[in-house]
Formats: sequence, structure tokens, C-alpha cells
Amino acid sequence: MDSLARKGNECMSDMTKVLNEKLQFVTETLETAEKYEHALHVLNFDMETLCPAEGMEEEGETIAFLSTQAYKLLKTDEFTEAAEYLYEHRFGSGTEDAPGDDALGELDRVLAENLHREYAKIKNITPEMNHEFTLTFNKAYIDWLNAKTASDYGIFAPSLAKVREINFKDVSLRTEKKASVYDSLLDDYERGITADDLDEAFGECKERLIPFLEKIRNSGKVIRTDFLHRTVKDEQQRAMTQYLLETIGYDFRRGAFATTEHPFTDDLAKNDVRITTHYYPEMFCSNLYSTIHEGGHAIFGQLQPYEHHGKHIANEMTLGMHESVSRFYENRIGRSEAFTGLIFDRTKEIFPGILDDVSPREFYEGVNAVRPSLIRTEADEFTYTFHIIIRYEIEKMIVNGNAPIEDLPRIWNEKYRDYLGVMPANDAEGILQDVHWSGGFGYFPTYALGNMYNAMYYNRMKNELDVERCVSGGDFASINGWMKENVFAKANLLEPKEWIRDITGRSFTPKDFLDYLEEKYGALYGIE
Amino acid sequence: MDSLARKGNECMSDMTKVLNEKLQFVTETLETAEKYEHALHVLNFDMETLCPAEGMEEEGETIAFLSTQAYKLLKTDEFTEAAEYLYEHRFGSGTEDAPGDDALGELDRVLAENLHREYAKIKNITPEMNHEFTLTFNKAYIDWLNAKTASDYGIFAPSLAKVREINFKDVSLRTEKKASVYDSLLDDYERGITADDLDEAFGECKERLIPFLEKIRNSGKVIRTDFLHRTVKDEQQRAMTQYLLETIGYDFRRGAFATTEHPFTDDLAKNDVRITTHYYPEMFCSNLYSTIHEGGHAIFGQLQPYEHHGKHIANEMTLGMHESVSRFYENRIGRSEAFTGLIFDRTKEIFPGILDDVSPREFYEGVNAVRPSLIRTEADEFTYTFHIIIRYEIEKMIVNGNAPIEDLPRIWNEKYRDYLGVMPANDAEGILQDVHWSGGFGYFPTYALGNMYNAMYYNRMKNELDVERCVSGGDFASINGWMKENVFAKANLLEPKEWIRDITGRSFTPKDFLDYLEEKYGALYGIE
Repeated sequence: MDSLARKGNECMSDMTKVLNEKLQFVTETLETAEKYEHALHVLNFDMETLCPAEGMEEEGETIAFLSTQAYKLLKTDEFTEAAEYLYEHRFGSGTEDAPGDDALGELDRVLAENLHREYAKIKNITPEMNHEFTLTFNKAYIDWLNAKTASDYGIFAPSLAKVREINFKDVSLRTEKKASVYDSLLDDYERGITADDLDEAFGECKERLIPFLEKIRNSGKVIRTDFLHRTVKDEQQRAMTQYLLETIGYDFRRGAFATTEHPFTDDLAKNDVRITTHYYPEMFCSNLYSTIHEGGHAIFGQLQPYEHHGKHIANEMTLGMHESVSRFYENRIGRSEAFTGLIFDRTKEIFPGILDDVSPREFYEGVNAVRPSLIRTEADEFTYTFHIIIRYEIEKMIVNGNAPIEDLPRIWNEKYRDYLGVMPANDAEGILQDVHWSGGFGYFPTYALGNMYNAMYYNRMKNELDVERCVSGGDFASINGWMKENVFAKANLLEPKEWIRDITGRSFTPKDFLDYLEEKYGALYGIE
Repeated sequence: MDSLARKGNECMSDMTKVLNEKLQFVTETLETAEKYEHALHVLNFDMETLCPAEGMEEEGETIAFLSTQAYKLLKTDEFTEAAEYLYEHRFGSGTEDAPGDDALGELDRVLAENLHREYAKIKNITPEMNHEFTLTFNKAYIDWLNAKTASDYGIFAPSLAKVREINFKDVSLRTEKKASVYDSLLDDYERGITADDLDEAFGECKERLIPFLEKIRNSGKVIRTDFLHRTVKDEQQRAMTQYLLETIGYDFRRGAFATTEHPFTDDLAKNDVRITTHYYPEMFCSNLYSTIHEGGHAIFGQLQPYEHHGKHIANEMTLGMHESVSRFYENRIGRSEAFTGLIFDRTKEIFPGILDDVSPREFYEGVNAVRPSLIRTEADEFTYTFHIIIRYEIEKMIVNGNAPIEDLPRIWNEKYRDYLGVMPANDAEGILQDVHWSGGFGYFPTYALGNMYNAMYYNRMKNELDVERCVSGGDFASINGWMKENVFAKANLLEPKEWIRDITGRSFTPKDFLDYLEEKYGALYGIE
């Protein structure tokens, strides 16, 4: 071995030593931060579920205190420098195309890239700006709440303009630029997806779904839904929640459920993924499908690779990826005739008297009835996409400056008329119905993308698994096993487009989703 | 003003300045520690109620992490020195009998005394010893659990000896001595109460209650209890819990309830005092009276003076004082005929069919039936005190070295035979029934003291308030108002003996309690 090679080895060895030290420091700091995060999740879950009204202020203060402790840990120069060092040396003495022997392992590399991406977003944001952003969003939330209560968009409009301004300021300070401000915002929720992708996908949706909705309207098919509004007691809905979660394979040794007005899933810790649901006496289906939806999110959380927790890259999948799973369980499985058939008898038992005059087929049809309506959260599977398209089109106009803030209610109402044939009677059931814009723009599309992703992987799944037979036989071990192996395994490692190509071998497209809707609803409404 | 006086003033002013600085530092540090404490209470409550089985290990780790953070804050030299400075200068330039103008205010003085008292107990305990103590108690707990499961005292005996040894070591290292080791241990749970006090009080109890129990046995009175074991569903017991807590004036804006195997009350924060209860299908009374018992603890927590929280001396009352309040609500109120009459009709509604063939009088008699039994937690109000006396006599013998560890089961069984006329068939229902001794000695007497305290203040209360009329009319505002003003107001400030004298103007005595038992049970069993 000549002296040059020895020197080279020595240098590598030095770098490896430093890299390992930095990695250890970053990992240990993240471990400590995750202890605080775990506590924060428990406190937040408690605040949403059991905390009494007058206890909330103090619980909020304790949450703020612990958040600050966690924040401080990750905002030191030492941590930032170590994390940036990892990112710069993630391929060791090699390059992205030819990583060196001393490169970080895959999971450590993903961690370094995640930390770098987050850092690039915030490195130029001063604490003062961060404070200004927080105040703006908090005020916008309060204004939205007041505006919705009064059904008066005028109360919210100035805050909405200010949120837009803050979003612009935030994006302008980032070191990594996208093609447009809107793309930057979108990227926060759905990495790698652009407005061009959405224009194309939603364009196809409109092209096929608007005329198809007309056919549904003209089909003359009448679907019974009267029984869906019969009164079901809370404790019966609680028993139903338990039954449904058990049925779809949610693991109660590693989870629990509680009730909240707005259901959610919370990954508190590796072995503690909880959901919430709600009980509306006259809408038992709201409990039923929100349970399956959140249960889907939770199964995703419970069946992530264990080692991702150890490497601090758990729960790194995008919102759209998460929604693809929850909607897979809610719609593809939960609203299939195989599933409504599976649960029919037990549902009759748990809800005595409610389904006595209802056939299994009527139950299936009832939970799938298409009803163009004004409210997104109550929409059926078919019309749901329109609600998202409308929000996408309007938020893109807002960000791009193509719609004056004062004109939004009119624009909103016209789109509801054009796409769904319904007209809001007031701002509360129109432009003000969702909270999201008080926190910025770019979130809504993730809801629709989820349906498109799962339609793509469902088409591979059904080639490898007799899905219908699994569902009607209650064999969720097979379904969840397939999801774990194919859908969940790399969700923390890849961006959505890479991930969907990895699962299906195909590029992202809305086609599978549109085919599915036309086939299912064509059969249901006797079209063609 | 001459120069000496000026100098004197300057000195005072300097001291006042330092005192204020130290007070501010101590107060701010305690505020931070209380944020951690609040989070720890939420996490502990969550662990006991909702946390799934496999999530407990991680939640336990997070609890340990946050505990360490809080512990570190209060174990710095700076904090200890500041706290000791406050204690030494609590009377300013004056003395206890004649405090200076620059003395600490009453609440700050109590804080300084509390911190000093705790410090005096632990100042000579090294971290290694503390670790040894913790390991010993943990092992004793596990051994007790295994021993009880196997009903084999031999498994627990070596640990019990070790716990005694640790208690001795702990006490020997304290800077402030009591008359005996047992008095020191007792003082940890019930400040200022000594074995002499208990010997006298329990001596009177035995003298009057043993012959009275004989009269009850011979009275020939038969009390119906069959209906107490009829099956009541969980959701009905849940509705009962809600009704009872509302009835006794528990404030749901500042509290909530959940279920656990062993009910408890948790003061999570100033405006968040929660209870837990349990539902046994065949013993609805267990839910009923554990709810009122914990509800009593919680009302005490909710009605403490607000300023005690601000001064970090909330929840400083002793266990006996707390038990006096919970047992006041459970027994003095909850088992009175006024109360069983108040809730009778509503109970019939909430538990359909359960009380149809039961009269209000039979309901009252049923919940008060005297049945000498082996198990403390299932004991009636009359025989309960015997269970405590037996434990007191035995733990005092253990600590004083008057009973070999291996003889304890025999001693236990003989006392049960002598006092209650029953004999345990095995160790599990005898010497092993309670967990407490795995954590040390001195706790049990607080349970009995509570009954004696509340009997004393009840006798003042009934002179100032028509208690029976309040209860039968559901006027708990008056009862709770009286308790707040007279019983709760100074509970954080005074030791039990001072406190009971402050409320009643009399020295501590078991007489009121014994008079009450003889009067109530005399009437119930037709004695004399």
C-alpha cells in the first residue's frame, strides 16, 4: 500500500469518525425531543378528549412549556451544524450516483435529508417572524370562527388576505425555490406534487365526472336512505366502534379510542396509536365511516416498519399518502358490498330494530347513495372530489392573485352551481365552511390525491389477492399484511410519485380512480 | 433619626432585598417544576385509564424522563440554599413569637417550612441510597404481587424484612428526630400524630366497639341485601356516576371521570381535578360509594383556596385530612337516610327493575348492613375501623421489633378472630391482602383518623346548618360552602391537631366518632 492510499484511508477514517459522532449526537438529541413529543401527544389527546373546560388554559400552558423545551433542543447551533454535516456527507466520500463505502445507511440518509429539508424552510425565519406567523394564524382562526358563526364572510376576509401575505413571505425566505409560490405551499403537504400535476388530474376528473353525475341524476334510480337517520344510542354506537375496529384488524393492545366532535388519529408513540370518533344519534353512519376512516389511518400507523421509529423517520409519509390509506379502508373496503354484507347481521344486533325492514342490498345502496350537497364533510364518495376541486381551483386563484379576496363567495357559489348543481344560501355553508384556509393554502388537494393513489394500488392488490373474498370472509390479516408489505413499507422513505411508482410500476394518474367510480356507480345506478 | 437606626434600617433593607430575590427564585423554579408535574399527572392519569397495554412501557419511559427533569430543577445547590435561606429568615429580623415587619407573609412562610421539612428528610440521602430504596420497594411490590397470587406469605416475607430495614435506614439519616422510628414513619403521612395518640384513640375504639358489635350480632335484626347484587349494566352505572357527582356538587367544568380497577382522585391542576370509578355488574354499590368517596376527595381539591396554588402550597393537607373529607361525603352524607332518600327515585330510574320491590327504608338499611368480613376494602362503615386497628397494631409490632416477620400471618389471623370473629382461610385474604406494606409502614392509620376528624367537625356543622334538611333537599351548595369555609380553608396551612382545634375548638378525640356509630347502628339494629 503506497503512502497516498494510506493517507486517503486515514482521511476517510477521520471523516467516518466525525460522521458517526455527529450521527450519534443528532440521534440522541432526537430521542430526547421525542420524549417531549410523546408527552405533548398525550397532553394534546387529553385536551381534545377528557380535559374539562376550565382546565384547558392550564393544560395549554403546560403544552406550550413542553413545546418550548423540545424546540430549544433542536434549535441549537450544535444540532443544526451536526444535521447539516450529515446532509453534506450523506454519500460519504462518494456521490449520489456512486455513494462511498462510508456513506450513511439508507435510513440515516433519509433522516439527514428530512432534517435538511425542514431546515432549508426555516433557516431564514427569525423568531420574531415565527411569532408574527403564529399570531396571524391564531387571529385568522378566531376571525373564521366568528365569521362562520355570524355567516358573514366580511369578518374573515381581511385575515384571509393577511394569511396569503404571510404564506408569500414564508415562501420568499426559503432557500430552495419551486416553480411558483403555490407549488411551494403544496410541497409542504405533498412533496413533489405540482399545480401542473393537479391541473391535469383534476381536469380529467371534471371531464369524466361532470357528465357522469348528469347520468346519475337522470337514471331514475331511487335509493332508500330513511333508515340511516333512525335514532341510535351512544352506547350502541360505542359498541359498533369497538366491533368495527376489531373487524378491520386495528390492534387494541397498541391503541384505544375516545370521542371528539371532529374525529382524528394520533400516533402518540410506537405502540400507542389512538383514534377518536363521534356519535350522532340520528346519523349512525357518520360514526361508522369515520371509525373505519380513522381506523385506516391507525392501521397505517401501527404497521409502519418498527426500525423507522428507531431511526426517527416514522410518520414521515405525506398527508396524501395517509389519506390514501384511510380512504382505502373507508371507501374501497368499507363501502364495498362485501363489507356491508360482512357487518350486516352484527350491525342489526348492535343496533336493535334499526335494520329490521332493510335488506343487505338496501344497506349497501344506502351507504353509497349519491347526493350532490353543499358540505364537504357530509359528501358521498362520488361527489367528494368536486368539493376538493372547487377548493383547489379557488385557493390557486387566491395565491396566484387571480381572484380579488372580496369576490370569493361569488366564485365559490358559482362553482358549486356549475359542478354540483347546488347553491349555498349563505357564507357559512359556502366559502366559510372549512377551517383550513385560516392556516394557509395547499392542504385540500391531499384529500383527493389519496383516492387516486389507493385506486392505483388497489388495482395491483386485486391481481395478487382475492380482495372481495378476504373482505366478505373477514380476513383482514391478508389485506393488512399486503398493505404492510407493499404500501406501508416505504411510505416514510419515498416521495408520493416515487412511492406510487414503487408500488405499482406506473406513473401517477387519476385514471384508475375514475374507472372505479364509473364502474361502481354505473352498476349502482344502472347506467349503460 | 440617629446613625445606628439608619444602619439598622439599611441592614433590614438589605436582608429584605435578598429574601425577596431568594423567594422569587424559589417561586419561579417551583412554577417550572409544576409544569412538569402537571404533565406527569396527565401522563399518569392516561396510563391508568386509556393507555393500551403495549404502550405502557414507552409511556413509563416518558414519565421517568419528565420526572428526572423536574427532580433536577429542585435538587440544585442554588435551589436548596435559597429554600434554606427562606426558612432561616422566615420571621425576618424578628422571631417566631414576634415576627419582624420584614417576615415572610403567612403563605410564603408555610412554603418555606414545607420545603425545609422535606429537605430535612432527604438531605442525607445520597442518590445511591435513593436508588437502593426505590429498588427495594419495587422488588417488594413484585414479591407481594406474586405472593398474593400464590397465596404464599413466604414469597413476600424476605422483602417485608428488607422494607423494614430500609425504613429504619431512612429514619436514621434524618436530622429531625421523633420519639420513635414508628413516630417518624407515621409523621410522613400524618404530621404531628404519634403512636401515643393512636394507642389512646384505638384503645377507646376497641373498648366500645367490640362489645357493641356483639350486641349487633345478638340483635336478631335481619337486613335485606339481596337487591344489592342484582346485575346492573356498565352504561347504567356510568349514568349513575354522572348523576351522583352532579348531586353532591362536583364541578364538571373543572373535572371529569374515567374508569380504573382501583378508583382514585387526581388533582392534575388547579382547574382540573378528576376521579375514577369502577363498574362491577353484580355490586352496583361499589360504584355508588366509591364515586361519592372520590367525589368527596375531588370537592376538597376543587374548593381549596385559589391563592394556595399561586403560592405552591396546594394539596399540602395530610392523608388523614383528605380521608376525613372523602369519608364525610361517603359515609356521613352518602350513607345517611336523608341521602339514600334523596337519590332513591332517580336510582330506580337509572337502574330499571333493580329497586322495584325495595322500599326507601330497605335501601337505606341495605347500604348500611353490618357484616364482619375479612376484606378491608369491602368492609361496612361500622367494622371498617377494626381492619385499620389490626393493621396498625401489627405494623407497630413489626417496626418496634415485637413480632418476628414469620409469625405475622398467625398474629393477623388471631386478631381477626378476636376483633371481628372471622378467620382468613389463607394468606391472600389475610396478611397479604393490601399492597401498602410493600412501600413501607405508617400509612394505614390515616384511614381511621379521617373518620374521627369528620365526626368532630360534623358535630360543629350540625349546630350551624340543618344538615339533614340540606341533604334531603339536595342543597349541597350550603354543605360544600360550609366545608370550604371551615374545613378546607386552612387544611394546607395547619397540622391535623392544630387544624381540628381550629375548626372545632377542641382537642382531637375519637369520642364523636364512637358516639355517632353507636347512635346510628343502635337505631338501625334496635339496640337499647
